Amino acid sequence: MNGKPSFNLCLLTDLYELTMMQGYYLTHPDQQAVFEMFFRRQPFDGGFSILAGSAPLIDTILHLRFNPPDLEYLRSLKIFADSFLEYLAGFRFTGDIWSMPEGSVVFPNEPLLRIQGNIIETQLLESIVLNMINYQTLIATKTARVAHVANGGAIIEFGLRRAHGVDGAISATRAAFIGGATATSNVLAGALYRIPVRGTMAHSWVMSFKSELAAFERYAELFPENCILLVDTYDTLNSGVPNAIRVLHELKKTGYEGFGIRLDSGDLEYLSGRSREMLDLAGLKEATIMASNELDEWIINQIVKSNSPIDGWGVGSKIVTADKDPFLTGVYKLAAKTDHDAMRPVMKISNNPEKTTLPGIKNVLRFYDSHHRLLADLLYLEEEEEELLEAVRFNKPIVFHHPSLDLSGFTSSAYSGAERLLSPMIQNGSLIADQPEINTIRNRAAQGLGSLDQTYKRLINPHRYKVSISTRLKEMKTRLIREYGLFEASNG
Amino acid sequence: MNGKPSFNLCLLTDLYELTMMQGYYLTHPDQQAVFEMFFRRQPFDGGFSILAGSAPLIDTILHLRFNPPDLEYLRSLKIFADSFLEYLAGFRFTGDIWSMPEGSVVFPNEPLLRIQGNIIETQLLESIVLNMINYQTLIATKTARVAHVANGGAIIEFGLRRAHGVDGAISATRAAFIGGATATSNVLAGALYRIPVRGTMAHSWVMSFKSELAAFERYAELFPENCILLVDTYDTLNSGVPNAIRVLHELKKTGYEGFGIRLDSGDLEYLSGRSREMLDLAGLKEATIMASNELDEWIINQIVKSNSPIDGWGVGSKIVTADKDPFLTGVYKLAAKTDHDAMRPVMKISNNPEKTTLPGIKNVLRFYDSHHRLLADLLYLEEEEEELLEAVRFNKPIVFHHPSLDLSGFTSSAYSGAERLLSPMIQNGSLIADQPEINTIRNRAAQGLGSLDQTYKRLINPHRYKVSISTRLKEMKTRLIREYGLFEASNG
Repeated sequence: MNGKPSFNLCLLTDLYELTMMQGYYLTHPDQQAVFEMFFRRQPFDGGFSILAGSAPLIDTILHLRFNPPDLEYLRSLKIFADSFLEYLAGFRFTGDIWSMPEGSVVFPNEPLLRIQGNIIETQLLESIVLNMINYQTLIATKTARVAHVANGGAIIEFGLRRAHGVDGAISATRAAFIGGATATSNVLAGALYRIPVRGTMAHSWVMSFKSELAAFERYAELFPENCILLVDTYDTLNSGVPNAIRVLHELKKTGYEGFGIRLDSGDLEYLSGRSREMLDLAGLKEATIMASNELDEWIINQIVKSNSPIDGWGVGSKIVTADKDPFLTGVYKLAAKTDHDAMRPVMKISNNPEKTTLPGIKNVLRFYDSHHRLLADLLYLEEEEEELLEAVRFNKPIVFHHPSLDLSGFTSSAYSGAERLLSPMIQNGSLIADQPEINTIRNRAAQGLGSLDQTYKRLINPHRYKVSISTRLKEMKTRLIREYGLFEASNG
Repeated sequence: MNGKPSFNLCLLTDLYELTMMQGYYLTHPDQQAVFEMFFRRQPFDGGFSILAGSAPLIDTILHLRFNPPDLEYLRSLKIFADSFLEYLAGFRFTGDIWSMPEGSVVFPNEPLLRIQGNIIETQLLESIVLNMINYQTLIATKTARVAHVANGGAIIEFGLRRAHGVDGAISATRAAFIGGATATSNVLAGALYRIPVRGTMAHSWVMSFKSELAAFERYAELFPENCILLVDTYDTLNSGVPNAIRVLHELKKTGYEGFGIRLDSGDLEYLSGRSREMLDLAGLKEATIMASNELDEWIINQIVKSNSPIDGWGVGSKIVTADKDPFLTGVYKLAAKTDHDAMRPVMKISNNPEKTTLPGIKNVLRFYDSHHRLLADLLYLEEEEEELLEAVRFNKPIVFHHPSLDLSGFTSSAYSGAERLLSPMIQNGSLIADQPEINTIRNRAAQGLGSLDQTYKRLINPHRYKVSISTRLKEMKTRLIREYGLFEASNG
């Protein structure tokens, strides 16, 4: 960005947010609005997602300002009125943001964030909320899938070179760590977010020496701790592993630990098995084997299931680009607005039924069984919260309606407790919640996944977690659809 | 990044680059190296790619510095020697960078950039080169595919909310514009790169009013120029289009132009056909129809082929995330290094044959026919350049060898000229080439695609463009493989 005017992140928005804001400013500047951010389907045909991106988002929102270069640029577009540009000059977000805790296990159609306040301000947040939450949630989820199948094996995130731009790499690393990566190769992300950084060597190291053996010897002299030798530059089994064994022997004699080899090409199941035999025969049972090469949860799962002796995994491209499903379908939809000072629910109806939204100001109750395992989530209206919490306290039967199938649902009192998921982070524009350390967020994700039955974590055809709606929410939805008169129109 | 120490992009690197740099610094600090950046296969099973990301990369490289916070962080890792950290404190890139022009049509296995200089410096650039070029090239290519099938229809890039983080969105917009997008919704990218910005309205605009008609009327009053009404909030054909017709009629009477509707859900072929009929019947033949909703080249191709009356396309998620193939397989490989002051070629051999590299300091000649259409590219060694250019001048037969199949190749003099693709951008650390305007880069891409036969641009099973190697390069490769003794080892 050198030599460019220094614009602010307030401009990281779709133009239509700004034109609509001007429209609201000129027509109904005092309207209050409630927006909800949710996603429509689990990525990767999976059974869960991990919410991530909240802390950087909150930080960005608190600092949204329009500075002179931003305003000058907007003025140059010749679509904004002076009065509106003056409004922007004094802009700051003065509304409320409710959020699920970052690191939560989350499911489709439930509000992950609720943004409420003046419609002009809340409209501006749409693009930045979606940009940050969609991407980081996707990457935390992908990494959690990879870590799950690795079954305790270390996951080192290596994705910088294939990530989507500078920040694609940085925020990917943060999200991957939350999702379960053990460390990263990305130094800047490590520095910014205090994530452990790790690295081995590249083929260029080996090639910069006269011989592979000389390259290994020199590397072991320089970096004797955790010395991992890359063995596939010329020929893994005939050159790389034998040379590594000579060097690791010396390291072992000198008393160093944590050494091993890295495989970066070829058939990893075959090569890891043969390498393990060679290392063991040479008396190097403690040498670890790390594998890399465009790995993903499917490949790792297969190799782990075959009992291949791989101790750690370098996973790059396919984590940070969310390979096979590179975007989360998160949206930001109006749920309520004021109308003559009264807050009224609204909903969007669509020619694609899956694009229909749920109306009203909502929260989510997560029900647990007596082993603190997740049972089901219930979306409900804020106005019925007290009543519902009371019912939960007395373990009364709760009705769980399917969010769209009219006749589907169940009643249950087979729960041991419930947790309210959305809580206030920003109130009247000020941060009111503690921003947790990244390790706290990572632990929350691990605990959440631990409370989720294995059937939801299968790679193939996972169990679908129940996200239900309360009776009152269902009634509100039905009433609004009737009010919009759509059944009549469609029959016409 | 508010409140965080302000680190420099020098840290946007993999840890192993820094440990290897320290290794070089302590063992052979004067070695000179030549690295090449290339990719291994066309993304999207396509027949071409468009090089992008060069200008921001060059800018970043020219400004790479290690500042006190960067050095302090590296010191805290306890793996770097004081002498090396002092070296980093005075670091700047003093080598050379050769590049193909940004916007070039490019193919697998040919060097897109060549980085030469001290091995410590050139090693550092690996991660940032790959991060920037891999991503922007991928997005420019994806967009070029979309623009190609849209057959002249406008492509508005709408991807901010699904892009991979802040910079994922900004650099995606830049690359999409180079690849053929007409405009973007992303205001910050528009401001930074002087790309036209466009926007219509969101469903929340419609929902914030008492009725759809009121929302349309108010929008048309406020933004009468290029007024595009979103018609699918409640019911496209029964409510959206009839309401739009009432409002557009008024606009037409008042003399405004450029108005139309946007479809964002449902079956676009069906709805655009029916909407067109309704608009035409109402005397609004000039109203345009814009479509959006998770479009990609496959969907647009099918709709265009059915002659659906859609004039412009909003394409977001699937452009900026490079859906179906979200990373380019670009790599950065050592091609030559000094050994007792003489530059010697090197190559990496691998258990995956496709990961074997081509040795030596190379450039690329692109051969054209008499209609200035691309015929074939030839990789050759710098040392044979004069001789080859002489041969081309006299239209002598040139031998084109297949890069890996020994017996495949051809000899041809059926060319009318050839162009050398890599030229110096940075020499001894200083910029020596003009950095073109983004429109120049975009025009180069369009011209390059215009010179590429239609058969290379098919979506399904495209013609594979020939990237060949010269006789001398082939001989060098064969000799090196023999020297490494691998045939013997593999037979043993």
